[in-house]
Amino acid sequence: MSELRKDPVVGRWVIISTERARRPSDFVSQPVRPLAADCAFCEGREGTTPPEILAGRPAGSEPNGPGWTYRVVPNKYPALRIEGDLETAGEGLFDRMTGIGAHEVVIEAPQHATSLAALGVDAVTDVLLAFRERARDLKKDPRLAYVLVFKNHGEAAGASLEHPHSQLIATPIIPIMVAEELTGAAQYFQMKERCVWCDMLRQERRGGLRLILETQGFVALAPFAPRFPFETWILPVHHRAAFEDCTEEELRGLATALGEFLRRMNRVLSDPPFNFMLHTAPLREGHLESFHWHLEIIPKLTRVAGFEWGSGFFINPMPPEDAADVLRAGPG
Amino acid sequence: MSELRKDPVVGRWVIISTERARRPSDFVSQPVRPLAADCAFCEGREGTTPPEILAGRPAGSEPNGPGWTYRVVPNKYPALRIEGDLETAGEGLFDRMTGIGAHEVVIEAPQHATSLAALGVDAVTDVLLAFRERARDLKKDPRLAYVLVFKNHGEAAGASLEHPHSQLIATPIIPIMVAEELTGAAQYFQMKERCVWCDMLRQERRGGLRLILETQGFVALAPFAPRFPFETWILPVHHRAAFEDCTEEELRGLATALGEFLRRMNRVLSDPPFNFMLHTAPLREGHLESFHWHLEIIPKLTRVAGFEWGSGFFINPMPPEDAADVLRAGPG
Repeated sequence: MSELRKDPVVGRWVIISTERARRPSDFVSQPVRPLAADCAFCEGREGTTPPEILAGRPAGSEPNGPGWTYRVVPNKYPALRIEGDLETAGEGLFDRMTGIGAHEVVIEAPQHATSLAALGVDAVTDVLLAFRERARDLKKDPRLAYVLVFKNHGEAAGASLEHPHSQLIATPIIPIMVAEELTGAAQYFQMKERCVWCDMLRQERRGGLRLILETQGFVALAPFAPRFPFETWILPVHHRAAFEDCTEEELRGLATALGEFLRRMNRVLSDPPFNFMLHTAPLREGHLESFHWHLEIIPKLTRVAGFEWGSGFFINPMPPEDAADVLRAGPG
Repeated sequence: MSELRKDPVVGRWVIISTERARRPSDFVSQPVRPLAADCAFCEGREGTTPPEILAGRPAGSEPNGPGWTYRVVPNKYPALRIEGDLETAGEGLFDRMTGIGAHEVVIEAPQHATSLAALGVDAVTDVLLAFRERARDLKKDPRLAYVLVFKNHGEAAGASLEHPHSQLIATPIIPIMVAEELTGAAQYFQMKERCVWCDMLRQERRGGLRLILETQGFVALAPFAPRFPFETWILPVHHRAAFEDCTEEELRGLATALGEFLRRMNRVLSDPPFNFMLHTAPLREGHLESFHWHLEIIPKLTRVAGFEWGSGFFINPMPPEDAADVLRAGPG
């Protein structure tokens, strides 16, 4: 079983996951990407994944058979598992916890050779609705504190399978990066009585220099201090703290903005590998005035090296104003 | 000129560096590694680097000519520059600062086809002494708050040149990761009146499970909550806050431990790409009771993906006890 461990100095938790390879020789060569013919996520091969948790199916269609538009399945090699008790223990000055949580995969389409950028608004909305449903369901488990939705697209961005998919990991503690955003945003709110992202949106929409696109209640912008070239955030224009409280109409707006942004990014950067990560309020604090949910998108174009790992500083050769300019001009 | 920018939510600074490529097409393909024949760092090609700041040379040897054992030169494409004034400015809710600092390269040997692991203790000690001298010199500049020494070895770890070298970047603010260590360690000290790394060393030397090697006043250990497989920290056994206060004898001890560790790592993991980063006290706070300098070494074996970038959690498939076991057994 996996284990959570806490660094005694900075308080960062890691997941020691023994479900996967661990002999030294396993780390030497990179994993091989399976061919489309062997793909476990393709329609007709439903038996190769664990049984589905949720799927988009017409009435009368059988679970775990063909005929779906999207499927949510448990990750076959989960970082955290729902089974077991949440137990904490000390070892001298160290702290550990059992690896309780959830790790699920959303297969975004039955076809192998497609991508989120190529899907229509209805299909992308369905994927987002699937995340909302899973977050609402996992929220019922009192052991869980957070659900992080993310996507690895392309081998350089950490994807081990080519078939379009995204993932969620639910954790028993609030991830440190989200905790830092919560703390910073709460301090800002305490000073100003305003949400920092609402202020950012006001400033960026007025100035326009870092604005990429705005559509149906959503804005895509290049953040003022981006870690990576072409890093982009998509936010709802109106204050919303919890992703799982979105209406279907709001998710359709997000699907439109996301699809439009991804198509522009793909044209400008020639279909780059990328990650996205959804930052939303913790499960037990859905209605924060100080927190504004947002989707962070990072094309994988540069390598992270010793300076970044040692300092937390990032060196970014692309000013966000120039990145926004290029992405604004790019055809949708 | 580069610019420092601060994220208004989490307070993380980034360096927007416009010294390097910035057209979208520049990001699409990876940089090509120069052949040994074109290497700017090889002996005999001293004119292709900026003039040297420091070098290991026999008496009578001319600067910027052959005959050296190591050379310190400014980075040709510096992330930060020493020239100019440190100016800060606001832009609505955002903060920026001119890119003042230093970015230097230590060329570790005149031969192209070698590595720190293959050099003798004298040569490695000289490289460490060079870092000490550069830190002592940069400390005289009141604009600088921190000197981060680091190494990128191998293309996957971010090296753009093959010739053995390491780097330092001096910054006008304390990097956020070091600031987090300082804060965490100060809290621990406030509770216990002891340095957290001293406590860690006591516990690990007693338990032995995560100990890799101990020699000449230095310990290499696998940390309890490592972010990466085979992540290793090397620390002085006795409490020391500032690297630049080391004696030559202490640096010889570090050179011995580092060389021994790197050779074991290379045997066990077949010469992996890796980074190391030196965490020392800030330049203006050299004698902290709560901070203990240490060298963090991370072999580059796994990809960092969306979950890590979004959460700050790391999924590590290698328990540090197993990693230490393998590295302990490996021949030196």
